[in-house]
Amino acid sequence: MREVFVIGCGMTKFDRHDDKNLMDLSVEASLRALDDAKPKDMKVDSVYFANMMAGELTYQTAVASALVDELGLLPAGAQRVENGPASGGSAVKNAFMAVASGVEDVVLVTGGEKMRHVPGDRITDLIASMTHPTAEYIHGVTLPSLAGMLTRLYMTRYGLTREHLAKVSVKNHMNALKNPYAHIHQAITLEGICLSGAAEVNNPLIADPIRLYDCCPVTDGAASVLLCSRNKLGEFGQNPIRVIGVGQATDTHAVHERKDPTVLNAVRISAERAFAMAKLKPQDIDVAELHDAFEILEIAESEDAGFFQKGTAHKAIDRGETLIGGRLPINPSGGLKARGHPVGATGVAQIVELTWQLRREAGERQVKGVERGFSCNFGGFGNNVLSFVLEAV
Amino acid sequence: MREVFVIGCGMTKFDRHDDKNLMDLSVEASLRALDDAKPKDMKVDSVYFANMMAGELTYQTAVASALVDELGLLPAGAQRVENGPASGGSAVKNAFMAVASGVEDVVLVTGGEKMRHVPGDRITDLIASMTHPTAEYIHGVTLPSLAGMLTRLYMTRYGLTREHLAKVSVKNHMNALKNPYAHIHQAITLEGICLSGAAEVNNPLIADPIRLYDCCPVTDGAASVLLCSRNKLGEFGQNPIRVIGVGQATDTHAVHERKDPTVLNAVRISAERAFAMAKLKPQDIDVAELHDAFEILEIAESEDAGFFQKGTAHKAIDRGETLIGGRLPINPSGGLKARGHPVGATGVAQIVELTWQLRREAGERQVKGVERGFSCNFGGFGNNVLSFVLEAV
Repeated sequence: MREVFVIGCGMTKFDRHDDKNLMDLSVEASLRALDDAKPKDMKVDSVYFANMMAGELTYQTAVASALVDELGLLPAGAQRVENGPASGGSAVKNAFMAVASGVEDVVLVTGGEKMRHVPGDRITDLIASMTHPTAEYIHGVTLPSLAGMLTRLYMTRYGLTREHLAKVSVKNHMNALKNPYAHIHQAITLEGICLSGAAEVNNPLIADPIRLYDCCPVTDGAASVLLCSRNKLGEFGQNPIRVIGVGQATDTHAVHERKDPTVLNAVRISAERAFAMAKLKPQDIDVAELHDAFEILEIAESEDAGFFQKGTAHKAIDRGETLIGGRLPINPSGGLKARGHPVGATGVAQIVELTWQLRREAGERQVKGVERGFSCNFGGFGNNVLSFVLEAV
Repeated sequence: MREVFVIGCGMTKFDRHDDKNLMDLSVEASLRALDDAKPKDMKVDSVYFANMMAGELTYQTAVASALVDELGLLPAGAQRVENGPASGGSAVKNAFMAVASGVEDVVLVTGGEKMRHVPGDRITDLIASMTHPTAEYIHGVTLPSLAGMLTRLYMTRYGLTREHLAKVSVKNHMNALKNPYAHIHQAITLEGICLSGAAEVNNPLIADPIRLYDCCPVTDGAASVLLCSRNKLGEFGQNPIRVIGVGQATDTHAVHERKDPTVLNAVRISAERAFAMAKLKPQDIDVAELHDAFEILEIAESEDAGFFQKGTAHKAIDRGETLIGGRLPINPSGGLKARGHPVGATGVAQIVELTWQLRREAGERQVKGVERGFSCNFGGFGNNVLSFVLEAV
């Protein structure tokens, strides 16, 4: 298997972009990644476009070949990957294999989503179309409702409190203040979102026990990485970052079929697979980008990826271990909570953040001494998960 | 790069399936491919689901991980590939690279589409959503209209007549009569669809100059292939067929931007790439499955893939060269015209037919002495094309 490197990366600001469509955003992120790579010539073999809802929300299908044309990269190959919120990671995995196989040498992966132009309840409903159609969706199950139930289980079984959730949210908002690409630039405090009285006013209930600040926003945006093989490194100007571990796993579609719903099996197995390929252990990781569409997911994923024992991550949060400067900084980018979550872009944006961190280009949010990063891109309610390990070269 | 083999294949009957949904059809085709492979144990590393319109037509997203669960293949990886009508070929290409890279050993590719439960004009409109949104779609361009204009150009420039188109259609209907999986089991005659008087009655105009029998039907169905690496061949019971060439290329999104719209650049380049990987030439091919969503496309693709000089395929048709028993049988399956065109399934169904032909299991439609087959899966109006070369082992 050939080695695979990230040689360029870029993203749009994650935001509400009323003046740009999906293609505008995706072109912008792609061009930033291509520029960043400082190529001697612009030969790209293939483009992967990660996107969940182009057909449903913008009435455009087969968007990958359209993007290739917009970028002036004809006749490069093109494929759109749709794996719900795991679309980005899935596209990166497939691009990795294209290069690793030797079929292609230089591959662009762009994830993008345009969501803010439709009402929020339409988005919540459309995202719920990835739940089980007869066991979940038809009964009114939504992603926030599943996150609410997982949170309740954590509270009853492991002693998680609302304060722990709020601490994750406060951390991610604080990190996002240092990330110019983040959607939400707003400092929040534990007191402001968590104290009785303040919570009712500032932090309304979404799906008991989770509240507004336990959930990511709806965001427009795109992110992009350029991958290449070792023999092509000389054709680019940037510091390469090596992708040393890739893992993917699936779990039951209906959450109620899992023996213990607090265990995210697909996170566990995909992380094991990524660490096995990388010949590393969770303890070797210096920074992690986790998929906190809901804050409970950052907590649960950090356990199932192997960074903390099941049911103990909230104690590590109390000790400040996941802050920038802590033992294992999680989501220095601000995470989905505050960087935002343009669904198809998220898995790619995680790789962009790790690349910046490993290149020591993360500015005020730079984690000191990072050599290896980990990302977890979580599809459905954990039924399709991608894990990656990246290393500075 | 590791060798890649088709070790199992299967499909549903292509038809109108009012009693089955997308998942039912996709499970059926997948289980047939898995059964056909006669595995010693049922370990599949990853599943690719090719599908264009699950979200739009069945309100289910992230269908790939759902399919893995339905098949009992957890925790296998899962990705849905959406590339319009090239979704199937694109999924096969990515599965090929997963095995070729060494990341995965056994990979299932299933293409499926459920389309007949919505009105035909909705389907035509939704398929038109892959045309250029501001240069084509907004002006009322549909795929039949683009095919009509291409046909007209062929008539003016190369001397193509309505009889030539009708001969392709008659051939494909005749072949489909010998294919139990084909959607349309109906013998048609040149006189019945082409003679003045008869044409007006039996073969109504769709987009001048093309008529009903120049277009494929709207079809429900699914098709599936199981790919594996050489080191896994011993774990299966069937004759392997080797995938020796894979090529993909894109062309301008808007058709009017092409210097000569009668030249399908992406067909030409993707075929060249597939033949280069296979170290073969078009003359080495014994049977071809081409993407005749419209009969003009079978003619144009057969030229741009390199089987005939541009503007001469209709003369080969007059000589009967593309009939079963001719010099290069094209679409022994019946093609999209008569086997049918469940959009996401088509590129996979082409590989299924080639596998059956190369295994000498194609029954009454078996092409004699076949050693190598070629397929062309055509996305958009030729802006994303995949070509494959398969060889008997």
